[in-house]
Amino acid sequence: MSTLVPPPDFPLRPALIDALQTRFAANCSTALAVRAQHGRDESVFDVPPPGAVVFAESTQDVVDAVRLAGEHGVPVIPYGAGSSIEGHLLAVQGGISIDVSRMNRVLSIQGDDLVATVQPGVTRKQLNEELRDTGLFFPIDPGADASLGGMAATRASGTNAVRYGTMRENVLALEVVTAQGDVIRTGTQARKSSAGYDLTRLFVGSEGTLGVMTEVTVRLYPLPEAVSAAICFFPDLDAAVQTVIQTIQLGVPIARVELLDGNTVRMVNAHAKLTLREEPMLLMEFHGSPASVQEQAETVQALASEAGGNDFSWATTPEDRTRLWTARHNAFFAALQSRPGCRAVTTDTCVPISRLADSVRAAVDDANASGIPYFLVGHVGDGNFHMGYLIDPESPDERERAERLSHDLVARTLAVGGTCTGEHGIGLHKMDFLVEETGEGAVDLMRAVKRALDPRGLMNPGKIFRMR
Amino acid sequence: MSTLVPPPDFPLRPALIDALQTRFAANCSTALAVRAQHGRDESVFDVPPPGAVVFAESTQDVVDAVRLAGEHGVPVIPYGAGSSIEGHLLAVQGGISIDVSRMNRVLSIQGDDLVATVQPGVTRKQLNEELRDTGLFFPIDPGADASLGGMAATRASGTNAVRYGTMRENVLALEVVTAQGDVIRTGTQARKSSAGYDLTRLFVGSEGTLGVMTEVTVRLYPLPEAVSAAICFFPDLDAAVQTVIQTIQLGVPIARVELLDGNTVRMVNAHAKLTLREEPMLLMEFHGSPASVQEQAETVQALASEAGGNDFSWATTPEDRTRLWTARHNAFFAALQSRPGCRAVTTDTCVPISRLADSVRAAVDDANASGIPYFLVGHVGDGNFHMGYLIDPESPDERERAERLSHDLVARTLAVGGTCTGEHGIGLHKMDFLVEETGEGAVDLMRAVKRALDPRGLMNPGKIFRMR
Repeated sequence: MSTLVPPPDFPLRPALIDALQTRFAANCSTALAVRAQHGRDESVFDVPPPGAVVFAESTQDVVDAVRLAGEHGVPVIPYGAGSSIEGHLLAVQGGISIDVSRMNRVLSIQGDDLVATVQPGVTRKQLNEELRDTGLFFPIDPGADASLGGMAATRASGTNAVRYGTMRENVLALEVVTAQGDVIRTGTQARKSSAGYDLTRLFVGSEGTLGVMTEVTVRLYPLPEAVSAAICFFPDLDAAVQTVIQTIQLGVPIARVELLDGNTVRMVNAHAKLTLREEPMLLMEFHGSPASVQEQAETVQALASEAGGNDFSWATTPEDRTRLWTARHNAFFAALQSRPGCRAVTTDTCVPISRLADSVRAAVDDANASGIPYFLVGHVGDGNFHMGYLIDPESPDERERAERLSHDLVARTLAVGGTCTGEHGIGLHKMDFLVEETGEGAVDLMRAVKRALDPRGLMNPGKIFRMR
Repeated sequence: MSTLVPPPDFPLRPALIDALQTRFAANCSTALAVRAQHGRDESVFDVPPPGAVVFAESTQDVVDAVRLAGEHGVPVIPYGAGSSIEGHLLAVQGGISIDVSRMNRVLSIQGDDLVATVQPGVTRKQLNEELRDTGLFFPIDPGADASLGGMAATRASGTNAVRYGTMRENVLALEVVTAQGDVIRTGTQARKSSAGYDLTRLFVGSEGTLGVMTEVTVRLYPLPEAVSAAICFFPDLDAAVQTVIQTIQLGVPIARVELLDGNTVRMVNAHAKLTLREEPMLLMEFHGSPASVQEQAETVQALASEAGGNDFSWATTPEDRTRLWTARHNAFFAALQSRPGCRAVTTDTCVPISRLADSVRAAVDDANASGIPYFLVGHVGDGNFHMGYLIDPESPDERERAERLSHDLVARTLAVGGTCTGEHGIGLHKMDFLVEETGEGAVDLMRAVKRALDPRGLMNPGKIFRMR
């Protein structure tokens, strides 16, 4: 499936390459290895790489790259950490990749205001590292050490979202280079605002199709006085999910609650050299004052016991907590490793919480019936879980069966008022699902917005929806 | 300032009035009194009223009204509870008012999912009344008993926002009638989603300029196990504000924290027949488990004492709490009553929390120096506060001085990274401030979105920004 030549219909003309090399010198590369690295991600897609990669070091670099590409009618594709799993980075219509990973400075930390402004290449771990002495943290944690620009572009969330929200709630403002190469700001440092259209939220989740983010202003939170993590095992998935549903319905302000099925625990054990019971498991974290954490944990422990959960056990030291969360975050790679050479067709459905048990059960039953190996992990406090179907990339039959599993799961999700993607974005993979979910009328509005802001269709084209 | 004739440049042609009356019969009114009622709000503006008012009772009614108006090239202005204070409802370019107050059914309450879907004319009090037996509540509380459609359209918030967020965070999905008269849905009942452009957030805060909302799906919350309200008085505004700043910076999950200055307490006392000390006052509320509420309250009480606060006292019974909150909510009317015949030029600035003390102090000093009576209330946990300059509407001099006070306050706010409007919206009054705040480039993007979704400029035109 691999190919490393640009597509014949979108060659970069020498004049553009000359102009880019004149402007960016060594920060523009046309080396095949560099282009190939920027032409794929963690998705199952292989397409031709971009014709060139510009390593932007400043907003002005992005402006100039966008303008030069525009003068030559060539698409631009922003690139952060490369951790998309929906094909966002792929040069499906050719063009140049604008790699912002060197724009990795934390520009300001206004601790008293619980606000930081960063360049888009700053990763979430880097930001938290730089916050270390402030008593504050940035909670959004999609697992991968993604860039904040990429996280904003995909409206990412992850394990802490049940308590702290997603990038939707936590991006206060953006600096964006528009399709015309202009620099705009979309908000202020105020915590709320009713000042005109919510351009911040329009760009958050727009997957690079409306402009290139060059600064991201985010909310920070005081480090909780106390943090406790706990794991609990359940006789079946239903029991685990029922515990979560009741926790949410009671309004317990749990900070994280992650589900793994026994099959996935087995993969994690093998990868992380752990000895967890290979049964449905919840991994939970509680934040607050010591008294509040204890109270929350007691409530959830009682709910878990009632549902048949057992071995409720604490990870009280930071080291234990880190080991568990690292294992959880590496579940994706643990799963890939469980079937060497495989790639994952992942789902990202999110349902209203009362439908979660049915949804998980049907997904697992379907996967088991198909015989395709899979993993199951979920930010279940939000109703969001991922199935990853581990397919042989050389087998069209397996891919087709995995896509059918995915399609059926999405169809069931939409039927109960859920969404096809809780946090990964549409990218290349879910364009048809988007239409099923929201209808052609709403997608037509998105197309109208796209045309208005990017009339020539040069900003990461071919993602989210097909233009008509 | 009052005038009750349609503007000469936007008369409704008899053909449209005929068509509306044929379609809507008694639900279309051209009576002057009805039009006048729909042609003003709580703002200082008086303009000609709409040419007709359609009382919509269904989505189809809205569709037909929008289409008929469109066929005749006439603007439409959605009308909910009429509680805007920024001139959103005024027919500055003529047109018809679509009154959705009869679309007042709660369509579904999915208690297990913490979600409700309502028609746009449902008011927040009505929704909470209908939720009474579910153990759930809808927290967004702008003071006025606004309609949820209007609250979504202005991205409203109010007293509970510091804990529960604003309409931005709490609207999950909308049904919208577009400028073309099509019906679209913008989201699902899932708690989070990365499915394409965030159309929900694009419409939330769009002030009726992109379409007419016909259904609103909102998040609900479990009623807190315990609720305590407290008031505390301070020797000066600074001491009160410092208490708030520290409360937020410590991450205390306070549910409400409202500031009134002594002058405003005096107005409230007179209006509500209370005997509160006429000093800077914080009115607070704590939600949670009994232990958590006690812990929060003790923390804040200690901060208040340190700042010089005294008379920290509890309103433990629901009746006491209701009396205090009713008094707070009526502060606007108490202020109007303090100067019979006056109208209020209101501000709505919101600053990063560390700048709140300076901002409040300068606003009060300025107002005192001007000699214009004013009130001051604030959702200070968000950095948001309102000055209301109480002017004689017949005095151009007073209005000009009030507008200057407002302008200077906004200028100081923008200089420290704040916004000109935390929750009221731009409307007619703050269009110039929007440009100052976000720049012409960002406003041009808004204009491009407006043109894309409403090419003929018929959806509540003349609000938020001037087209070019």
